[in-house]
Amino acid sequence: MPQTMVPDVVVRRLPLYLQALNHLAEAGRTLVSSTELGEAVGVSSAQIRKDLSFFGEFGRPGLGYEIRYLISALQRILQLDKDWHMVIIGAGALGHALANYRGFEDHRFAIVGVFDHDPDRVGARVGRLLVEPMELLPSRIRENHVDIAILSVPARSAQAVADQVVACGVRAILNYAPMALSTPQDVHVTYIDPIARLQAMTYYL
Amino acid sequence: MPQTMVPDVVVRRLPLYLQALNHLAEAGRTLVSSTELGEAVGVSSAQIRKDLSFFGEFGRPGLGYEIRYLISALQRILQLDKDWHMVIIGAGALGHALANYRGFEDHRFAIVGVFDHDPDRVGARVGRLLVEPMELLPSRIRENHVDIAILSVPARSAQAVADQVVACGVRAILNYAPMALSTPQDVHVTYIDPIARLQAMTYYL
Repeated sequence: MPQTMVPDVVVRRLPLYLQALNHLAEAGRTLVSSTELGEAVGVSSAQIRKDLSFFGEFGRPGLGYEIRYLISALQRILQLDKDWHMVIIGAGALGHALANYRGFEDHRFAIVGVFDHDPDRVGARVGRLLVEPMELLPSRIRENHVDIAILSVPARSAQAVADQVVACGVRAILNYAPMALSTPQDVHVTYIDPIARLQAMTYYL
Repeated sequence: MPQTMVPDVVVRRLPLYLQALNHLAEAGRTLVSSTELGEAVGVSSAQIRKDLSFFGEFGRPGLGYEIRYLISALQRILQLDKDWHMVIIGAGALGHALANYRGFEDHRFAIVGVFDHDPDRVGARVGRLLVEPMELLPSRIRENHVDIAILSVPARSAQAVADQVVACGVRAILNYAPMALSTPQDVHVTYIDPIARLQAMTYYL
């Protein structure tokens, strides 16, 4: 069960640890030190030990972390030991790229529907699916127990679409629209905005 | 000139302030309080005042911030008062979506080339450009003074491509490949990995 006292910034680092551990496991490794894991992720070994200490005692002094065990512990903590259902809203170029991205399924994030309000886009094939009209969104979300909505709509439509998915019971939004969303407290919104990330990099150039 | 003592996390918030300020300016507003700006971005007013204090004195007690002035100050701090040149490497579905995304040009990030190592993709039209072979990458980067490389290649190719662009003098990489990159200290890498962001959200569901 998630502990409520864990800082968000710690939670955001756990997937990075998991990714590095998976690479090590694929390379046939069984143990890793916090120093080596830290180097792979780009944080200090002290940070790794501190982050993991929120969830229990995982390392063995002098030996390091048992990779398979830590992977399954992190998967349980992040609730990745189950399938998550997602819809994509907005079937433009980005929506198509997302629908065709195999990484989602590889990580047990299943895309169960792609929606667009534009009649010219409805019916088009995207990956294994056909684009459906927005009118079908509420029933699809309920039938398929959709947990997460990915918004790949223009900024001007993002708030209205967010309101719709929240009204249907979705509690997590991955927002590709360059627009801050206003949502209830119990809805988790994550922003993927390349412009903001580029603008933070140019500071250093 | 960038101050070296400003924490990365503060720098990453500045583009969000800028975005909110631009929306306010477009709505015809001239002044904004730190409370209102904080609500638009999702941080406390104290945080905003603290973040901005790294760069000078911007607010006027009892009045708030003069929006146009703060926009131009943030643009100068983030070095957004000039054009930045970018190349996209990897002309798959995501590369196409990125090349067609008008948001980059709207924010003075110009895509000057799209590259792929696959001969079947070379010559294809993406947006205003044609996909070019990787052999032309070094000369294009030098001729066009490219500052930033966007990597939309598979994870297995990402490190080799990063090594190539770094060897050509690129000092900033926006990496869409789900793979931690090893680069020299003076190269800035930003990761856009929807899987890691989804995996951090499921913790809360």
